[in-house]
Amino acid sequence: MAMPEKPKAVILLSGGLDSTTVLAIASAAGFAPYGITFRYGQRHATEIDFARRVAQAMGIVEQIVVDIDLRCFGGSALTSDIKIPKHQDVDRIGDEIPVTYVPARNTIFLSFALAWAEVLSAGDIFIGVNALDYSGYPDCRPEYIAAYQQMANLATKRSVEGEQVTIHTPLLHWTKAEIIQRGLELGVNYGLTASCYDPTSDGLACGQCDACLLRLRGFAENDRADPARYVGDD
Amino acid sequence: MAMPEKPKAVILLSGGLDSTTVLAIASAAGFAPYGITFRYGQRHATEIDFARRVAQAMGIVEQIVVDIDLRCFGGSALTSDIKIPKHQDVDRIGDEIPVTYVPARNTIFLSFALAWAEVLSAGDIFIGVNALDYSGYPDCRPEYIAAYQQMANLATKRSVEGEQVTIHTPLLHWTKAEIIQRGLELGVNYGLTASCYDPTSDGLACGQCDACLLRLRGFAENDRADPARYVGDD
Repeated sequence: MAMPEKPKAVILLSGGLDSTTVLAIASAAGFAPYGITFRYGQRHATEIDFARRVAQAMGIVEQIVVDIDLRCFGGSALTSDIKIPKHQDVDRIGDEIPVTYVPARNTIFLSFALAWAEVLSAGDIFIGVNALDYSGYPDCRPEYIAAYQQMANLATKRSVEGEQVTIHTPLLHWTKAEIIQRGLELGVNYGLTASCYDPTSDGLACGQCDACLLRLRGFAENDRADPARYVGDD
Repeated sequence: MAMPEKPKAVILLSGGLDSTTVLAIASAAGFAPYGITFRYGQRHATEIDFARRVAQAMGIVEQIVVDIDLRCFGGSALTSDIKIPKHQDVDRIGDEIPVTYVPARNTIFLSFALAWAEVLSAGDIFIGVNALDYSGYPDCRPEYIAAYQQMANLATKRSVEGEQVTIHTPLLHWTKAEIIQRGLELGVNYGLTASCYDPTSDGLACGQCDACLLRLRGFAENDRADPARYVGDD
Protein backbone atom coordinates (compact mmCIF):
# COMPACT_ATOMS: atom_id res chain seq x y z
CA MET A 1 0.00 0.00 0.00
CA ALA A 2 1.41 3.39 -0.95
CA MET A 3 2.03 5.77 1.93
CA PRO A 4 0.08 9.02 1.69
CA GLU A 5 2.31 11.85 0.54
CA LYS A 6 3.55 14.12 3.32
CA PRO A 7 2.36 17.73 3.12
CA LYS A 8 5.12 20.09 2.01
CA ALA A 9 6.30 22.90 4.26
CA VAL A 10 8.72 25.74 3.53
CA ILE A 11 11.17 26.30 6.40
CA LEU A 12 13.19 29.51 6.73
CA LEU A 13 16.60 28.03 7.46
CA SER A 14 19.51 30.25 8.44
CA GLY A 15 21.70 27.53 9.92
CA GLY A 16 21.19 29.01 13.38
CA LEU A 17 19.99 27.32 16.53
CA ASP A 18 16.37 28.52 16.24
CA SER A 19 15.69 27.69 12.59
CA THR A 20 17.41 24.31 12.92
CA THR A 21 15.14 23.46 15.87
CA VAL A 22 12.14 24.58 13.81
CA LEU A 23 13.22 22.26 11.00
CA ALA A 24 13.35 19.34 13.47
CA ILE A 25 9.90 20.27 14.81
CA ALA A 26 8.36 20.48 11.32
CA SER A 27 9.85 17.11 10.32
CA ALA A 28 8.66 15.50 13.56
CA ALA A 29 5.18 16.89 12.88
CA GLY A 30 5.07 14.97 9.59
CA PHE A 31 5.88 17.66 7.04
CA ALA A 32 8.20 17.20 4.06
CA PRO A 33 10.61 20.09 4.67
CA TYR A 34 11.77 22.49 1.94
CA GLY A 35 14.48 24.86 3.19
CA ILE A 36 14.91 28.45 2.03
CA THR A 37 18.14 30.23 2.94
CA PHE A 38 19.16 33.82 2.16
CA ARG A 39 22.48 35.30 1.16
CA TYR A 40 21.57 38.90 1.91
CA GLY A 41 24.89 40.64 2.31
CA GLN A 42 25.15 39.65 5.98
CA ARG A 43 28.63 39.97 7.39
CA HIS A 44 28.12 36.59 9.04
CA ALA A 45 27.77 34.89 5.64
CA THR A 46 29.47 31.77 7.01
CA GLU A 47 25.99 30.91 8.34
CA ILE A 48 25.06 29.84 4.79
CA ASP A 49 27.61 27.00 5.00
CA PHE A 50 26.04 26.01 8.30
CA ALA A 51 22.59 26.07 6.69
CA ARG A 52 23.79 23.74 3.92
CA ARG A 53 25.27 21.30 6.43
CA VAL A 54 22.11 21.36 8.54
CA ALA A 55 19.96 20.76 5.44
CA GLN A 56 22.06 17.77 4.43
CA ALA A 57 22.22 16.27 7.90
CA MET A 58 18.51 16.66 8.58
CA GLY A 59 16.96 15.30 5.40
CA ILE A 60 15.66 18.42 3.72
CA VAL A 61 13.80 17.49 0.50
CA GLU A 62 15.14 20.56 -1.33
CA GLN A 63 17.08 23.65 -0.30
CA ILE A 64 17.30 26.90 -2.24
CA VAL A 65 19.70 29.73 -1.42
CA VAL A 66 18.24 33.04 -2.56
CA ASP A 67 20.54 35.96 -3.34
CA ILE A 68 19.19 39.32 -2.24
CA ASP A 69 21.52 42.17 -1.53
CA LEU A 70 20.15 44.11 1.42
CA ARG A 71 23.37 46.16 1.50
CA CYS A 72 21.81 48.39 -1.18
CA PHE A 73 19.80 49.98 1.67
CA GLY A 74 22.27 49.91 4.55
CA GLY A 75 20.75 50.76 7.91
CA SER A 76 21.92 47.74 9.94
CA ALA A 77 25.03 46.55 11.74
CA LEU A 78 24.50 43.14 10.13
CA THR A 79 24.86 44.48 6.59
CA SER A 80 27.11 47.52 6.95
CA ASP A 81 30.09 48.81 8.90
CA ILE A 82 28.21 49.67 12.11
CA LYS A 83 29.94 47.96 15.07
CA ILE A 84 28.28 44.86 16.58
CA PRO A 85 27.62 45.41 20.32
CA LYS A 86 29.50 43.05 22.64
CA HIS A 87 29.40 42.06 26.31
CA GLN A 88 25.92 43.38 26.98
CA ASP A 89 24.05 42.46 30.16
CA VAL A 90 22.19 39.37 28.91
CA ASP A 91 19.12 40.18 31.02
CA ARG A 92 18.71 43.54 29.28
CA ILE A 93 18.95 42.25 25.69
CA GLY A 94 15.66 43.09 23.98
CA ASP A 95 14.87 46.18 26.07
CA GLU A 96 15.67 48.32 23.02
CA ILE A 97 15.74 47.52 19.31
CA PRO A 98 19.48 47.06 18.64
CA VAL A 99 21.65 48.19 15.72
CA THR A 100 21.64 44.59 14.43
CA TYR A 101 18.01 45.12 13.36
CA VAL A 102 17.78 44.77 9.55
CA PRO A 103 14.95 46.88 8.08
CA ALA A 104 11.96 44.71 7.10
CA ARG A 105 14.11 41.57 6.98
CA ASN A 106 11.48 39.05 8.06
CA THR A 107 8.93 40.72 5.77
CA ILE A 108 11.29 40.21 2.84
CA PHE A 109 12.22 36.65 3.87
CA LEU A 110 8.58 35.60 4.38
CA SER A 111 7.65 37.06 1.00
CA PHE A 112 10.13 34.82 -0.79
CA ALA A 113 8.94 31.87 1.30
CA LEU A 114 5.36 32.70 0.30
CA ALA A 115 6.31 32.73 -3.39
CA TRP A 116 8.08 29.39 -3.16
CA ALA A 117 5.24 27.86 -1.13
CA GLU A 118 2.84 28.84 -3.91
CA VAL A 119 5.01 27.26 -6.60
CA LEU A 120 5.33 24.08 -4.49
CA SER A 121 1.60 24.06 -3.64
CA ALA A 122 2.61 24.10 0.02
CA GLY A 123 0.19 25.50 2.60
CA ASP A 124 2.64 25.76 5.50
CA ILE A 125 5.59 28.05 6.25
CA PHE A 126 7.75 27.67 9.38
CA ILE A 127 9.81 30.51 10.85
CA GLY A 128 11.88 30.49 14.03
CA VAL A 129 10.86 33.86 15.43
CA ASN A 130 10.79 34.21 19.17
CA ALA A 131 9.23 36.91 21.30
CA LEU A 132 10.90 36.04 24.60
CA ASP A 133 14.67 35.46 24.58
CA TYR A 134 15.15 37.59 21.52
CA SER A 135 16.84 40.74 20.38
CA GLY A 136 13.76 42.97 20.48
CA TYR A 137 13.06 42.97 16.74
CA PRO A 138 9.57 44.26 15.79
CA ASP A 139 9.14 41.61 13.09
CA CYS A 140 9.37 38.81 15.66
CA ARG A 141 6.19 39.81 17.52
CA PRO A 142 3.01 37.68 17.43
CA GLU A 143 0.85 40.58 16.19
CA TYR A 144 3.22 41.06 13.27
CA ILE A 145 3.08 37.37 12.32
CA ALA A 146 -0.73 37.37 12.53
CA ALA A 147 -0.94 40.41 10.25
CA TYR A 148 1.51 38.81 7.82
CA GLN A 149 -0.60 35.67 7.58
CA GLN A 150 -3.74 37.71 6.95
CA MET A 151 -1.99 39.59 4.12
CA ALA A 152 -0.52 36.37 2.69
CA ASN A 153 -3.98 34.87 2.42
CA LEU A 154 -4.98 37.68 0.06
CA ALA A 155 -1.72 37.81 -1.89
CA THR A 156 -1.56 34.75 -4.09
CA LYS A 157 -3.39 32.95 -6.86
CA ARG A 158 -3.52 29.97 -4.52
CA SER A 159 -5.34 32.06 -1.89
CA VAL A 160 -7.89 33.22 -4.47
CA GLU A 161 -8.52 29.56 -5.21
CA GLY A 162 -9.38 29.00 -1.54
CA GLU A 163 -6.11 27.42 -0.36
CA GLN A 164 -4.89 29.08 2.82
CA VAL A 165 -1.33 29.41 4.04
CA THR A 166 -0.37 29.06 7.71
CA ILE A 167 2.70 30.73 9.19
CA HIS A 168 3.95 28.42 11.95
CA THR A 169 6.03 29.94 14.76
CA PRO A 170 6.59 27.07 17.19
CA LEU A 171 9.30 28.92 19.15
CA LEU A 172 7.31 32.12 19.64
CA HIS A 173 6.80 31.87 23.39
CA TRP A 174 9.71 29.64 24.40
CA THR A 175 12.86 30.65 26.27
CA LYS A 176 16.16 29.85 24.59
CA ALA A 177 16.63 27.08 27.16
CA GLU A 178 13.25 25.55 26.20
CA ILE A 179 14.14 25.74 22.50
CA ILE A 180 17.40 23.89 23.12
CA GLN A 181 15.69 21.34 25.35
CA ARG A 182 13.14 20.52 22.65
CA GLY A 183 15.84 20.32 19.99
CA LEU A 184 17.92 17.93 22.07
CA GLU A 185 14.84 15.73 22.58
CA LEU A 186 14.44 15.62 18.80
CA GLY A 187 18.10 14.71 18.30
CA VAL A 188 19.34 17.99 16.85
CA ASN A 189 23.12 18.21 16.59
CA TYR A 190 23.70 21.84 17.62
CA GLY A 191 27.36 21.48 16.68
CA LEU A 192 26.14 21.98 13.08
CA THR A 193 24.50 25.33 13.88
CA ALA A 194 25.83 28.87 14.15
CA SER A 195 24.26 31.83 15.93
CA CYS A 196 27.03 34.45 16.15
CA TYR A 197 26.50 37.89 14.54
CA ASP A 198 30.25 38.42 14.21
CA PRO A 199 32.04 35.11 13.57
CA THR A 200 35.60 34.72 12.27
CA SER A 201 36.04 33.82 8.60
CA ASP A 202 36.51 30.21 9.78
CA GLY A 203 33.07 30.28 11.38
CA LEU A 204 34.22 30.50 15.00
CA ALA A 205 31.67 32.28 17.21
CA CYS A 206 32.76 35.43 19.10
CA GLY A 207 31.03 34.46 22.37
CA GLN A 208 30.30 38.10 23.14
CA CYS A 209 27.48 39.40 20.89
CA ASP A 210 23.79 39.25 21.89
CA ALA A 211 23.20 36.06 19.88
CA CYS A 212 26.16 34.27 21.50
CA LEU A 213 25.22 35.43 25.01
CA LEU A 214 21.61 34.24 24.68
CA ARG A 215 22.73 30.91 23.23
CA LEU A 216 25.36 30.26 25.90
CA ARG A 217 22.87 31.01 28.67
CA GLY A 218 20.37 28.61 27.05
CA PHE A 219 22.85 25.76 27.11
CA ALA A 220 23.96 26.61 30.65
CA GLU A 221 20.33 26.44 31.82
CA ASN A 222 20.14 22.94 30.31
CA ASP A 223 23.39 22.00 32.11
CA ARG A 224 24.87 21.22 28.72
CA ALA A 225 27.99 22.44 26.97
CA ASP A 226 27.36 24.31 23.71
CA PRO A 227 28.97 22.14 20.99
CA ALA A 228 29.53 25.21 18.75
CA ARG A 229 33.13 26.33 18.25
CA TYR A 230 34.11 29.62 19.88
CA VAL A 231 37.15 31.84 19.49
CA GLY A 232 39.74 30.67 22.03
CA ASP A 233 38.46 27.07 22.17
CA ASP A 234 41.19 24.48 21.89
CA MET B 1 13.66 81.89 3.77
CA ALA B 2 14.45 78.19 3.38
CA MET B 3 11.75 76.11 1.75
CA PRO B 4 10.44 73.30 3.94
CA GLU B 5 11.88 69.96 2.89
CA LYS B 6 9.55 67.84 0.75
CA PRO B 7 8.45 64.54 2.31
CA LYS B 8 10.19 61.55 0.76
CA ALA B 9 8.21 58.85 -1.00
CA VAL B 10 9.35 55.51 -2.39
CA ILE B 11 7.87 54.80 -5.85
CA LEU B 12 7.84 51.32 -7.36
CA LEU B 13 9.07 52.15 -10.85
CA SER B 14 9.07 49.52 -13.59
CA GLY B 15 9.33 51.89 -16.53
CA GLY B 16 5.81 50.97 -17.57
CA LEU B 17 2.86 53.22 -18.24
CA ASP B 18 1.24 52.78 -14.83
CA SER B 19 4.26 53.28 -12.57
CA THR B 20 5.43 56.26 -14.64
CA THR B 21 2.03 57.89 -14.20
CA VAL B 22 2.22 57.18 -10.47
CA LEU B 23 5.62 58.88 -10.34
CA ALA B 24 4.13 61.97 -12.00
CA ILE B 25 1.21 61.95 -9.53
CA ALA B 26 3.51 61.64 -6.48
CA SER B 27 5.72 64.47 -7.71
CA ALA B 28 2.71 66.68 -8.44
CA ALA B 29 1.43 65.96 -4.91
CA GLY B 30 4.63 67.45 -3.47
CA PHE B 31 6.66 64.34 -2.63
CA ALA B 32 10.39 63.97 -3.25
CA PRO B 33 10.38 60.73 -5.29
CA TYR B 34 12.79 57.84 -4.68
CA GLY B 35 12.44 55.13 -7.35
CA ILE B 36 12.91 51.41 -6.72
CA THR B 37 13.23 49.12 -9.74
CA PHE B 38 13.63 45.34 -9.80
CA ARG B 39 15.72 43.11 -12.03
CA TYR B 40 13.93 39.89 -11.17
CA GLY B 41 14.73 37.58 -14.04
CA GLN B 42 11.86 38.92 -16.14
CA ARG B 43 12.16 38.07 -19.81
CA HIS B 44 11.16 41.65 -20.59
CA ALA B 45 14.29 42.98 -18.83
CA THR B 46 14.51 45.82 -21.36
CA GLU B 47 11.96 47.53 -19.07
CA ILE B 48 14.84 48.33 -16.70
CA ASP B 49 16.39 50.58 -19.35
CA PHE B 50 13.01 52.27 -19.70
CA ALA B 51 12.84 52.72 -15.91
CA ARG B 52 16.25 54.40 -15.91
CA ARG B 53 15.25 56.78 -18.70
CA VAL B 54 11.97 57.62 -16.97
CA ALA B 55 13.80 58.26 -13.68
CA GLN B 56 16.25 60.62 -15.39
CA ALA B 57 13.61 62.46 -17.37
CA MET B 58 11.25 62.93 -14.44
CA GLY B 59 13.59 64.18 -11.74
CA ILE B 60 13.83 61.20 -9.39
CA VAL B 61 15.97 62.10 -6.35
CA GLU B 62 17.56 58.63 -6.26
CA GLN B 63 16.91 55.35 -8.06
CA ILE B 64 18.02 51.91 -6.92
CA VAL B 65 17.83 48.78 -9.05
CA VAL B 66 17.48 45.73 -6.82
CA ASP B 67 18.60 42.33 -8.10
CA ILE B 68 16.34 39.47 -7.05
CA ASP B 69 16.21 36.33 -9.08
CA LEU B 70 12.63 35.07 -9.07
CA ARG B 71 13.62 32.43 -11.65
CA CYS B 72 14.76 30.25 -8.73
CA PHE B 73 11.06 29.49 -8.16
CA GLY B 74 9.69 29.41 -11.71
CA GLY B 75 5.93 29.30 -11.91
CA SER B 76 5.32 32.22 -14.27
CA ALA B 77 5.40 32.95 -17.99
CA LEU B 78 7.24 36.18 -17.17
CA THR B 79 10.20 34.37 -15.60
CA SER B 80 10.30 31.00 -17.36
CA ASP B 81 9.71 29.39 -20.74
CA ILE B 82 5.90 29.31 -20.53
CA LYS B 83 4.47 30.98 -23.67
CA ILE B 84 3.03 34.50 -23.33
CA PRO B 85 -0.62 34.56 -24.49
CA LYS B 86 -1.31 36.75 -27.53
CA HIS B 87 -4.35 38.19 -29.33
CA GLN B 88 -6.77 37.68 -26.48
CA ASP B 89 -10.18 39.35 -26.49
CA VAL B 90 -9.32 42.58 -24.66
CA ASP B 91 -12.71 42.66 -22.90
CA ARG B 92 -12.06 39.27 -21.31
CA ILE B 93 -8.59 40.05 -19.94
CA GLY B 94 -8.77 39.68 -16.16
CA ASP B 95 -11.56 37.09 -16.11
CA GLU B 96 -8.99 34.50 -15.08
CA ILE B 97 -5.57 34.81 -13.46
CA PRO B 98 -3.20 34.41 -16.43
CA VAL B 99 0.10 32.53 -16.76
CA THR B 100 1.93 35.86 -16.59
CA TYR B 101 1.09 35.98 -12.85
CA VAL B 102 4.37 35.91 -10.85
CA PRO B 103 3.94 34.25 -7.43
CA ALA B 104 3.87 36.85 -4.62
CA ARG B 105 5.58 39.45 -6.82
CA ASN B 106 3.98 42.56 -5.35
CA THR B 107 4.47 41.19 -1.83
CA ILE B 108 8.19 40.84 -2.53
CA PHE B 109 8.43 44.23 -4.26
CA LEU B 110 6.56 46.05 -1.49
CA SER B 111 8.77 44.41 1.14
CA PHE B 112 11.90 45.86 -0.43
CA ALA B 113 10.15 49.24 -0.76
CA LEU B 114 9.23 49.04 2.93
CA ALA B 115 12.85 48.36 3.89
CA TRP B 116 14.13 51.28 1.83
CA ALA B 117 11.39 53.59 3.14
CA GLU B 118 12.50 52.79 6.68
CA VAL B 119 16.15 53.55 5.90
CA LEU B 120 15.11 56.82 4.20
CA SER B 121 12.68 57.72 7.04
CA ALA B 122 9.96 57.92 4.40
CA GLY B 123 6.34 57.37 5.42
CA ASP B 124 4.89 56.96 1.92
CA ILE B 125 5.11 54.23 -0.71
CA PHE B 126 3.45 54.53 -4.14
CA ILE B 127 2.54 51.53 -6.30
CA GLY B 128 0.72 51.53 -9.64
CA VAL B 129 -1.64 48.62 -9.01
CA ASN B 130 -4.98 48.73 -10.73
CA ALA B 131 -8.08 46.68 -10.07
CA LEU B 132 -10.01 47.57 -13.21
CA ASP B 133 -8.17 47.37 -16.55
CA TYR B 134 -5.73 44.81 -15.25
CA SER B 135 -4.63 41.27 -15.77
CA GLY B 136 -6.54 39.77 -12.84
CA TYR B 137 -3.62 39.47 -10.43
CA PRO B 138 -4.66 38.82 -6.79
CA ASP B 139 -1.98 41.17 -5.44
CA CYS B 140 -3.53 44.14 -7.22
CA ARG B 141 -6.80 44.05 -5.23
CA PRO B 142 -7.73 46.76 -2.71
CA GLU B 143 -8.21 44.23 0.14
CA TYR B 144 -4.70 42.93 -0.45
CA ILE B 145 -3.19 46.42 -0.32
CA ALA B 146 -5.11 47.23 2.89
CA ALA B 147 -3.83 44.04 4.54
CA TYR B 148 -0.30 44.80 3.38
CA GLN B 149 -0.41 48.26 4.95
CA GLN B 150 -1.69 46.83 8.23
CA MET B 151 1.17 44.30 8.30
CA ALA B 152 3.73 46.96 7.33
CA ASN B 153 2.70 49.08 10.28
CA LEU B 154 3.72 46.27 12.62
CA ALA B 155 6.86 45.25 10.75
CA THR B 156 9.47 47.92 11.29
CA LYS B 157 11.40 49.68 14.00
CA ARG B 158 9.93 52.89 12.61
CA SER B 159 6.39 51.57 13.18
CA VAL B 160 7.23 50.63 16.78
CA GLU B 161 8.33 54.24 17.25
CA GLY B 162 4.88 55.40 16.14
CA GLU B 163 5.66 56.43 12.56
CA GLN B 164 3.12 54.95 10.17
CA VAL B 165 3.61 54.05 6.52
CA THR B 166 0.94 54.64 3.88
CA ILE B 167 0.71 52.57 0.69
CA HIS B 168 -0.66 54.89 -2.00
CA THR B 169 -2.46 53.32 -4.96
CA PRO B 170 -3.71 56.30 -6.97
CA LEU B 171 -4.57 54.18 -10.05
CA LEU B 172 -6.53 51.54 -8.18
CA HIS B 173 -9.98 52.34 -9.58
CA TRP B 174 -9.09 54.02 -12.86
CA THR B 175 -9.48 52.64 -16.37
CA LYS B 176 -6.37 52.53 -18.51
CA ALA B 177 -7.83 55.44 -20.50
CA GLU B 178 -8.21 57.50 -17.31
CA ILE B 179 -4.64 56.70 -16.26
CA ILE B 180 -3.31 57.89 -19.62
CA GLN B 181 -5.52 60.99 -19.52
CA ARG B 182 -4.17 61.99 -16.10
CA GLY B 183 -0.59 61.32 -17.17
CA LEU B 184 -0.97 63.45 -20.28
CA GLU B 185 -2.36 66.29 -18.14
CA LEU B 186 0.77 66.01 -15.97
CA GLY B 187 3.04 66.09 -19.02
CA VAL B 188 4.19 62.45 -18.99
CA ASN B 189 6.09 61.44 -22.13
CA TYR B 190 4.71 57.94 -22.68
CA GLY B 191 7.27 57.42 -25.44
CA LEU B 192 9.73 56.75 -22.60
CA THR B 193 7.61 53.93 -21.15
CA ALA B 194 7.27 50.24 -21.98
CA SER B 195 4.41 47.90 -21.13
CA CYS B 196 4.95 44.82 -23.31
CA TYR B 197 5.41 41.40 -21.66
CA ASP B 198 7.29 40.06 -24.69
CA PRO B 199 9.33 42.82 -26.34
CA THR B 200 12.14 42.33 -28.85
CA SER B 201 15.72 42.67 -27.56
CA ASP B 202 15.64 46.23 -28.97
CA GLY B 203 12.67 47.06 -26.74
CA LEU B 204 10.01 47.03 -29.49
CA ALA B 205 6.57 46.10 -28.12
CA CYS B 206 4.78 43.06 -29.59
CA GLY B 207 1.36 44.75 -29.78
CA GLN B 208 -0.37 41.44 -29.07
CA CYS B 209 0.04 40.50 -25.38
CA ASP B 210 -2.46 41.51 -22.67
CA ALA B 211 -0.36 44.49 -21.60
CA CYS B 212 -0.06 45.83 -25.15
CA LEU B 213 -3.76 45.31 -25.90
CA LEU B 214 -4.88 47.16 -22.74
CA ARG B 215 -2.44 49.99 -23.42
CA LEU B 216 -3.42 50.40 -27.08
CA ARG B 217 -7.11 50.51 -26.16
CA GLY B 218 -6.36 53.16 -23.50
CA PHE B 219 -4.69 55.43 -26.04
CA ALA B 220 -7.45 54.81 -28.60
CA GLU B 221 -10.08 55.85 -26.04
CA ASN B 222 -8.14 59.11 -25.58
CA ASP B 223 -8.03 59.57 -29.37
CA ARG B 224 -4.25 59.61 -29.13
CA ALA B 225 -1.58 57.59 -30.84
CA ASP B 226 0.59 55.52 -28.50
CA PRO B 227 4.12 56.97 -28.84
CA ALA B 228 5.68 53.60 -27.87
CA ARG B 229 7.53 51.73 -30.61
CA TYR B 230 5.90 48.53 -31.85
CA VAL B 231 7.17 45.70 -34.05
CA GLY B 232 6.37 46.62 -37.64
CA ASP B 233 6.40 50.38 -37.05
CA ASP B 234 8.41 52.34 -39.61
